[in-house]
Amino acid sequence: MTNKPDRLGDMPTEEFRRFGYQIIDQLADYFDEMERYPVLSQVEPDWLKNNLPASAPESGEDFGEILGDVDRLIMPAVTHWNHPNFHGLFSTSTSSVGVFGEMFAAAFDMKAMLWRTSPASTELEDVVLDWLRQMMALPAHFEGIIYDTASVSTMHAIAAARERAGLHIREQGMSGRDDLPLLRVYASQHVHSSIDKACITLGLGTRSLRKIECNERFEVIPEKLALAIEEDIAAGYRPICVIPTIGTTSTSSVDPVDAIADICEKYGIWLHVDTAYAGSTAIIPEFQHHFKGCERADSIVVNPHKWLFTPFDLSVLYCKDLSELKGAFSLVAEYLKTSDEQSVKNGMDYGIQLGRRFRALKLWFVIRYFGREGLIARLREHCRLARLFASWVEESSDWELMAPVPFALVCFRACPAGAGDLNALNEKIMNDINASGDAYLSHTKLNDNFAMRLSVGSIRVEERHLRKVWDHLNERLP
Amino acid sequence: MTNKPDRLGDMPTEEFRRFGYQIIDQLADYFDEMERYPVLSQVEPDWLKNNLPASAPESGEDFGEILGDVDRLIMPAVTHWNHPNFHGLFSTSTSSVGVFGEMFAAAFDMKAMLWRTSPASTELEDVVLDWLRQMMALPAHFEGIIYDTASVSTMHAIAAARERAGLHIREQGMSGRDDLPLLRVYASQHVHSSIDKACITLGLGTRSLRKIECNERFEVIPEKLALAIEEDIAAGYRPICVIPTIGTTSTSSVDPVDAIADICEKYGIWLHVDTAYAGSTAIIPEFQHHFKGCERADSIVVNPHKWLFTPFDLSVLYCKDLSELKGAFSLVAEYLKTSDEQSVKNGMDYGIQLGRRFRALKLWFVIRYFGREGLIARLREHCRLARLFASWVEESSDWELMAPVPFALVCFRACPAGAGDLNALNEKIMNDINASGDAYLSHTKLNDNFAMRLSVGSIRVEERHLRKVWDHLNERLP
Repeated sequence: MTNKPDRLGDMPTEEFRRFGYQIIDQLADYFDEMERYPVLSQVEPDWLKNNLPASAPESGEDFGEILGDVDRLIMPAVTHWNHPNFHGLFSTSTSSVGVFGEMFAAAFDMKAMLWRTSPASTELEDVVLDWLRQMMALPAHFEGIIYDTASVSTMHAIAAARERAGLHIREQGMSGRDDLPLLRVYASQHVHSSIDKACITLGLGTRSLRKIECNERFEVIPEKLALAIEEDIAAGYRPICVIPTIGTTSTSSVDPVDAIADICEKYGIWLHVDTAYAGSTAIIPEFQHHFKGCERADSIVVNPHKWLFTPFDLSVLYCKDLSELKGAFSLVAEYLKTSDEQSVKNGMDYGIQLGRRFRALKLWFVIRYFGREGLIARLREHCRLARLFASWVEESSDWELMAPVPFALVCFRACPAGAGDLNALNEKIMNDINASGDAYLSHTKLNDNFAMRLSVGSIRVEERHLRKVWDHLNERLP
Repeated sequence: MTNKPDRLGDMPTEEFRRFGYQIIDQLADYFDEMERYPVLSQVEPDWLKNNLPASAPESGEDFGEILGDVDRLIMPAVTHWNHPNFHGLFSTSTSSVGVFGEMFAAAFDMKAMLWRTSPASTELEDVVLDWLRQMMALPAHFEGIIYDTASVSTMHAIAAARERAGLHIREQGMSGRDDLPLLRVYASQHVHSSIDKACITLGLGTRSLRKIECNERFEVIPEKLALAIEEDIAAGYRPICVIPTIGTTSTSSVDPVDAIADICEKYGIWLHVDTAYAGSTAIIPEFQHHFKGCERADSIVVNPHKWLFTPFDLSVLYCKDLSELKGAFSLVAEYLKTSDEQSVKNGMDYGIQLGRRFRALKLWFVIRYFGREGLIARLREHCRLARLFASWVEESSDWELMAPVPFALVCFRACPAGAGDLNALNEKIMNDINASGDAYLSHTKLNDNFAMRLSVGSIRVEERHLRKVWDHLNERLP
């Protein structure tokens, strides 16, 4: 062991090399043998906690021992998001080259606050986001910025919308004023909870979020939206932002962005499109129609960490005019002033976070390694598999679809004749499958009906994996 | 090349293994030969951009070529934060084992939103943050949560303080109300810009932040704070949060937390301590005195990614009562409901971000590999080196210290006899050194005087590195 108490500095590089190889081997085996792990960790709450010492070690430990503990203690408590049978929430997964990107990013350990503290990160971000923009067929006026999560991207979009209202909220705030109308944000009744959280954070409160009724396909009804806005204006409120979703979390439904854009234009409201999940499919030519109207948005969020094989986290916010975001957030302290301020882009100017990880690198690796065609082929296959699964559901009298399948998420339930309480039955089937470790499904409620959600999105998923889930489901029918 | 167009799935694992080894070798060489790189990247703005194709490749590329481009295109545009002569801003650096932690985190690609989606991440976070709490000698009632950056940690603390005011801002928001007094947040005139940004984001506005005068040591004057609060209360405003800093960004000065805690107690105000930079030194017994009063705080932010050899990002927020944070942010959509909700901790309940990276792993690696003693020895050495450098400054008639040196940051300037405009001289000296690539210094302004900032914090820094800077400085005297 070279980690002697009298030695300062980092681990000797010969040791870094040796353990580095060992970790690469361990991860290669992990990717190879993924399917022998239960998808959902099978440990009980507090198992890991109870197996760890209550205090930090006084002296340094050999890294070989620490690595052994990864196998012994961490692995059993891991839920395997990369497993091809992880169908819960949204199925996301990392590619190998995405991991390579994070290795470099961690080793460089750059904080891309200023251009000069990280030219590579700042400029590669611009370049790779422009590549993605072109792949998604978004107009050239969209400029992107990378945040950690869609929750944070969307919060920034709403903050910019709040600023555009011209009420001087950046400087004057909203407390201690009697001149502020109630500000309103509009979204589908099926909108993601991150919008509620953004409204809470921004001081708008949950009452500022007006949720609009959907049709039987779980899509916002534009007429209802227009009516709500008219009502609010009549009541003296101020609409600031409308957030349609392309690929809602519950059912992956598609709000009619083009019709909503008409309404936003009419009333001068910021249009923010949440396509964190489905946005990646805009690169597939035959899926482009879902994105009609996006070209008119003020901002769009899309998450390559969801469905573009890029490890978490990497969320992209595209803005029609990035300077509005800068206007809402830029603030340069003396210790951050540089002589090149006017001529370069400083990432810190576009949001609350000062330091920013070198996230563009992994996306650059992913796009280059797979190429546009390779990415399209993989997403297309996932959508094909989801439709295939949906066709099995449709063809069986014991099962029914609960929502359309525009992308690669299937909402369905068991409905065998004479089954009694369908909600209880479906919840039981899902819990049994999840407990088996063979697959992970999650659920939602649609018109008070319990619906299972099967998401297809792992880079490792094949038809046999869906067949396995289908067998599991049918075996559990009463 | 195995990345054939007709092949789906991920990179074959034999390729992952081969390129993985190659990257480990590349990074080992990088760590070994760090000092042959210029600290600040020497490229001109747009150099990287101009060297990259304007569009994504149609077909996938061989990863060997991509890796070649890292050397050819990325490396010249990297500013080397790990370089032992990176003394700008705050000198931060990653350890090798920190990189290992990120490798596993990227490969697992877990999103620790729910306990069940990542028991390992959820429980290891609790355990390792309790280890750190003990090392920092904070009382047992503090419970921690990991965010990406201090900006985000502090924003959450102020949001919780805003909620504690009992004005129902979470639900009712702050617009369209005439019953809200102006809310006030107090901090030093030397406070970090992230506090201003948090106030902007939260809808409090920059006018809600009242900056308090400091003494000649750049420490908040408690009497001035008390007076400001009294004035505000008399004016009908509502004080919600006071944010003293232990280790301010400009000079690393230490606000008197204990005296400020008295004031917070008297008026019932949330006490948030910003010790993002210096907090790590609370693990050094003889530095404990700087942290007097922290035990009385409502929340404390400390960043292991700054000065605990943990790669960016990992910021810790300790709260006296974490349920207040949960009360401010928890919101559970149907698709996130689980049967174990009451019995387990779900990370998503404590903030705006839903998904959370497995950040605890790298900190676990760092604490175990170096041990408490090893970490103390390294921080102690950095502080010794900074004091040594400060002693050279003090002993020379050509230089002067501009602020006390409580930790490992030295603020100083050249003041040779008959030099004329000292601000211009010092700025020129700094820019010359930065342009040389041999070291990176940054600056601040103190009472309108330009002061250079030399921060000592790299895991690779030795006395010879400071000697080199000292020589560079003296060579540039007129």
